[in-house]
Amino acid sequence: MAEVQMVDADERRTLIAELEKYNFRVSSPDRPLFTKEPNSSMVPVLWKAGDIAEQLEQIGSRLKLQAGGARRTLQLSNPGLPYGTTPTFWVSIQYILPGEIATAHRHMASALRFIMQGEGADTTVDGEMYQINEGDLVLTPNWTWHDHEHKGSEPMVWIDVLDISLVRSCHAVFFEDFESARQTPNVIPDESYRRFGSGLMRPLRRPEPKKYSPLLAYTSAMSEEALRQAAGLDPDPYDDVILEYQNPLTGESALPTIGTRLQMLRPGTHTRAHRHTGSAVYYVVRGEGATIIDGRRFEWAKGDFLALPPWAVHEHLNTGQSEAVLFQVNDIPALEKLGFYREQPA
Amino acid sequence: MAEVQMVDADERRTLIAELEKYNFRVSSPDRPLFTKEPNSSMVPVLWKAGDIAEQLEQIGSRLKLQAGGARRTLQLSNPGLPYGTTPTFWVSIQYILPGEIATAHRHMASALRFIMQGEGADTTVDGEMYQINEGDLVLTPNWTWHDHEHKGSEPMVWIDVLDISLVRSCHAVFFEDFESARQTPNVIPDESYRRFGSGLMRPLRRPEPKKYSPLLAYTSAMSEEALRQAAGLDPDPYDDVILEYQNPLTGESALPTIGTRLQMLRPGTHTRAHRHTGSAVYYVVRGEGATIIDGRRFEWAKGDFLALPPWAVHEHLNTGQSEAVLFQVNDIPALEKLGFYREQPA
Amino acid sequence: MAEVQMVDADERRTLIAELEKYNFRVSSPDRPLFTKEPNSSMVPVLWKAGDIAEQLEQIGSRLKLQAGGARRTLQLSNPGLPYGTTPTFWVSIQYILPGEIATAHRHMASALRFIMQGEGADTTVDGEMYQINEGDLVLTPNWTWHDHEHKGSEPMVWIDVLDISLVRSCHAVFFEDFESARQTPNVIPDESYRRFGSGLMRPLRRPEPKKYSPLLAYTSAMSEEALRQAAGLDPDPYDDVILEYQNPLTGESALPTIGTRLQMLRPGTHTRAHRHTGSAVYYVVRGEGATIIDGRRFEWAKGDFLALPPWAVHEHLNTGQSEAVLFQVNDIPALEKLGFYREQPA
Amino acid sequence: MAEVQMVDADERRTLIAELEKYNFRVSSPDRPLFTKEPNSSMVPVLWKAGDIAEQLEQIGSRLKLQAGGARRTLQLSNPGLPYGTTPTFWVSIQYILPGEIATAHRHMASALRFIMQGEGADTTVDGEMYQINEGDLVLTPNWTWHDHEHKGSEPMVWIDVLDISLVRSCHAVFFEDFESARQTPNVIPDESYRRFGSGLMRPLRRPEPKKYSPLLAYTSAMSEEALRQAAGLDPDPYDDVILEYQNPLTGESALPTIGTRLQMLRPGTHTRAHRHTGSAVYYVVRGEGATIIDGRRFEWAKGDFLALPPWAVHEHLNTGQSEAVLFQVNDIPALEKLGFYREQPA
Ligand SMILES: [Fe+2]
Ligand SMILES: [Fe+2]
Ligand SMILES: [Fe+2]
Ligand SMILES: [Fe+2]
Ligand SMILES: [Fe+2]
Ligand SMILES: [Fe+2]
Ligand SMILES: [Fe+2]
Ligand SMILES: [Fe+2]
Repeated sequence: MAEVQMVDADERRTLIAELEKYNFRVSSPDRPLFTKEPNSSMVPVLWKAGDIAEQLEQIGSRLKLQAGGARRTLQLSNPGLPYGTTPTFWVSIQYILPGEIATAHRHMASALRFIMQGEGADTTVDGEMYQINEGDLVLTPNWTWHDHEHKGSEPMVWIDVLDISLVRSCHAVFFEDFESARQTPNVIPDESYRRFGSGLMRPLRRPEPKKYSPLLAYTSAMSEEALRQAAGLDPDPYDDVILEYQNPLTGESALPTIGTRLQMLRPGTHTRAHRHTGSAVYYVVRGEGATIIDGRRFEWAKGDFLALPPWAVHEHLNTGQSEAVLFQVNDIPALEKLGFYREQPA
Repeated sequence: MAEVQMVDADERRTLIAELEKYNFRVSSPDRPLFTKEPNSSMVPVLWKAGDIAEQLEQIGSRLKLQAGGARRTLQLSNPGLPYGTTPTFWVSIQYILPGEIATAHRHMASALRFIMQGEGADTTVDGEMYQINEGDLVLTPNWTWHDHEHKGSEPMVWIDVLDISLVRSCHAVFFEDFESARQTPNVIPDESYRRFGSGLMRPLRRPEPKKYSPLLAYTSAMSEEALRQAAGLDPDPYDDVILEYQNPLTGESALPTIGTRLQMLRPGTHTRAHRHTGSAVYYVVRGEGATIIDGRRFEWAKGDFLALPPWAVHEHLNTGQSEAVLFQVNDIPALEKLGFYREQPA
Repeated sequence: MAEVQMVDADERRTLIAELEKYNFRVSSPDRPLFTKEPNSSMVPVLWKAGDIAEQLEQIGSRLKLQAGGARRTLQLSNPGLPYGTTPTFWVSIQYILPGEIATAHRHMASALRFIMQGEGADTTVDGEMYQINEGDLVLTPNWTWHDHEHKGSEPMVWIDVLDISLVRSCHAVFFEDFESARQTPNVIPDESYRRFGSGLMRPLRRPEPKKYSPLLAYTSAMSEEALRQAAGLDPDPYDDVILEYQNPLTGESALPTIGTRLQMLRPGTHTRAHRHTGSAVYYVVRGEGATIIDGRRFEWAKGDFLALPPWAVHEHLNTGQSEAVLFQVNDIPALEKLGFYREQPA
Repeated sequence: MAEVQMVDADERRTLIAELEKYNFRVSSPDRPLFTKEPNSSMVPVLWKAGDIAEQLEQIGSRLKLQAGGARRTLQLSNPGLPYGTTPTFWVSIQYILPGEIATAHRHMASALRFIMQGEGADTTVDGEMYQINEGDLVLTPNWTWHDHEHKGSEPMVWIDVLDISLVRSCHAVFFEDFESARQTPNVIPDESYRRFGSGLMRPLRRPEPKKYSPLLAYTSAMSEEALRQAAGLDPDPYDDVILEYQNPLTGESALPTIGTRLQMLRPGTHTRAHRHTGSAVYYVVRGEGATIIDGRRFEWAKGDFLALPPWAVHEHLNTGQSEAVLFQVNDIPALEKLGFYREQPA
């Protein structure tokens, strides 16, 4: 049935035209629905730190920031797709000046922030306020109110990820502005951290598990220490040392649709190659190395971003003298829930 | 942020063009990512039984059936979408002559069949063979091998549903032909029915729950009796009498991504209106009535199909003298898993 | 540590006496806490139908039935235990005359009834009224209000099971009388049957899963048909044809602590022997056969009861010309939840 | 039915005697099965640190330690019970001299150790070796092999808890000695800590969740920091600041049957009173205070133990100048699984 050369191809093309007025179709001889394996139009892309810095400056000077409006944000765009960094999500880089505020709002898309540089912004998610600093991961799960204000003295840069393309594929986009510019934070700061931040002890009156983590911020100190401990385990054949940010109440991914991982490639590492469904974007936290994707080699260093298409064969190398650390975002939790996840050694 | 009139719209358009070579973008002033609520391009469509019969005959005479190749299938095509009956799935009507065989294969998309007419085909799913008859629902969950052979003496017509558009949105299409035309059926026929067909008693050695129902065929006798019993309950305000086919080991939907329901509207019924995310297609098993979708009235009768777009307000009427029964297919289980399901009274 | 001959046994005995005033102890040389495997004091017992009938009559004539008070109930008592039919539950046989009422109450212990003979009683559980007939299983899960009234014209006999010994072991006994003799039944009769009786289709608005089945009565018609279907599967090596009553929303046992099974031994059957933790009582619904427990043979026929101790090796034979059917009650679901279940071929 | 004065009490007593030979009984007028609420024979007991030290020394000098045999262990015995500290578990205090070894074994009972004093022992659980120090909680879940060796230079004292009475109530006691005195530890030390010790990040290839925590040791540093963070939350009305050790893969209690909690009462605290099913034992890690149990006041200080019976009303006071910290062991997870847990403000 897949990719079969149809003997009645001409008749089919005629029929497709005739049937259109009834809102009927027959299987097309030209664009078969099925392929033996994914044939993604997404392409691997490398974005270099230097280009990012330069263009962030460009848009900073040329775009106007309206109150609560469009932000100073550079979207990583995949040339193989009509929109998006991957088939399901957008990655953007946001540049925030001291004193800037993003007004409170919420959306059906799940989102997260990973701090590339700077410190001193506070962010409020469903009433809970956090201080966010370099290396922290902050979740803004779907339909949670969120806003932020940069109270530090130097510019900050962070990664914004939104599974907006997946939401759009389902025709389920919702967006709502909050009644005022910022939420009034709860009296208890860091409440979710105080309740669930140890990961190993919890309040007696456990909340009904939601689809997302009850912990809204994962600090760099925690994730780096976890990575250091994991370095004492047997290496993962495809990823060396790699950990997934998890929901401490369920052991599932921190967000229901977006997977977040932190990974260390030790000097000399050259991983085995594999492929899997799901698309990913890597951000190089530190170090330098290369990733070979479907036979093409991408050299990366601190501050670069790399996009990996679904089912593309990939392997990683650390080409430097010190450890390389990658933060990874993917849509694997969504694919697993739908039953579409599959992986294969290459 | 949503639908804001941007003061720097011209500059943004210039920048978008300039940034393209770096694979960067800025938010477009023309196609904002966010809308207040879903603004689906899918449109409601009614397909009439008469047109279906006529065009099935057309394609039957004009298309060639290759061995295991393209079948005599009429796809219900939504004019608001580039392809598909809804944003996530295709519904087709298949016409099968006595003696015809569909060769064994499997695919990542989940699929199901609901028998519109006829009897005597047997279908084999992962080695288990069933006789299928009018009103039965047969599952071919994702990546299960399936084939069928029509051993009866009269033509059969059935509904084929595939969540192929959802799989395509995730760039996760897989398809594989079996090594031979038909699977060798297991020695024990109806094995899953014998194990799980009562829904209320199960074998001692319970299998690990899979993402889909361990029961592969739901008979018309069972579903009609369940509907009769449910008619003694308080009516559902939006759907009168309605039941969901469930996985008897988990209480979840029978398939992980596709919801299947059977619904009875009793004479005189006019339900309350509501809307929800998720798209649906109704097939009229018997009776006659109307559905009002976003203010437009669609009159339906036995054998018709009706497509309901996401977030469209809808209400149902039975306009006949006897009960109307609708079989419904939707993508609500997928949306619930992703956290995108929401409903609202109108 | 287990069953070790202690060299300081005398000194220990002295110390145990001395330490008593401080509420301290040391490990006793006489009653070690640990044994290599369970060494249950429960003994296998066979109760014959004839004795049951005779003694039911005895107590019927000699005991007084107070309003809502003690019932005409014969408890199956295990001579190896201080009380109870097994270490965790009591099985009783209740004799109910036309017109008799059991007043409404509830208790922490889970309970069930299996109808041995007669028809026409109605029972009300948390407001839902059912007609109960021979071969039906009726649940009265823990802390649900229940009462019954026998509206038929002939006496009824049923089995009462209560996990009261398990509740007592945990010092968690609660009992409460309802404010009046009988509950006012809900307007909709058989509501849980109408909602969940098919096991395969469910209402759209699914309730939060409770620890017990949402279906409160399992009919003989359903269970017998399920058993007939299961007879087409490969036989279970230890039990021939056997099914467990399940919660259709979770696939778990119908009650959280008490397992209920229906089992058919076909003519000529002689099962393999095995043993497992958990205690069980069998009631012979029809047929005749024998069970060999730890080398001792118990011949049973219709109406008899047989108690099986934990970890006792057992095998079943059908010694008659027609099928034998056994209803079984056990505490295996409780043991599984606690992590204490284990089984082993003999 | 409960506690009803039976009019036929004499006749019942006669019948009970007569029916004994048939292994039948009728409800006793003397020891009714049901009470309105738990009427536990367990009594509250306070064990003072001074008595413990003195008697540990006594048994240390008078009992002989056999190889792998009985240890130098003082059991906390409840005078209201035939055996056990509570209806379901035993708490013991173990005194370990430098160089001592406990030989490897396993048992059906779940067990844990909480280090009261000292450092330098290593313990091996199912092949994983840990260094254990003061304030650490170490799990030896049911049927895991465990042994330990004290490699430090000063004596250690720790708490041993075993849910042996619950296992005995179910007649499911198993015990097995390992083939040699000590297990050969895995090559990777602290493996479960490296995999799950952060509680917030996990290896990609997540194991099938077991009934117990994949993390076998919870350090004092972690639990004390978690308690400090929780002190910033609203106080628990009955327990001030209290956290439960959890399984980081499921959010459930660390062991399936035994609950473990760490609790801080701040100076001046006097909690509200409540009661619940389930029994508990408190160990005073530091500070001083009092607990009022069913109207009786128990003054405690560092090193004391206090046993709380099921359904006893209790409230806590910190009577000192600094914070008091209590480690608590209970059987609440078992009761919750069985559906027997209930609580009530007093
Ligand atoms: Fe946002
Ligand atoms: Fe990978
Ligand atoms: Fe197919
Ligand atoms: Fe609807
Ligand atoms: Fe009762
Ligand atoms: Fe058995
Ligand atoms: Fe032990
Ligand atoms: Fe308490």
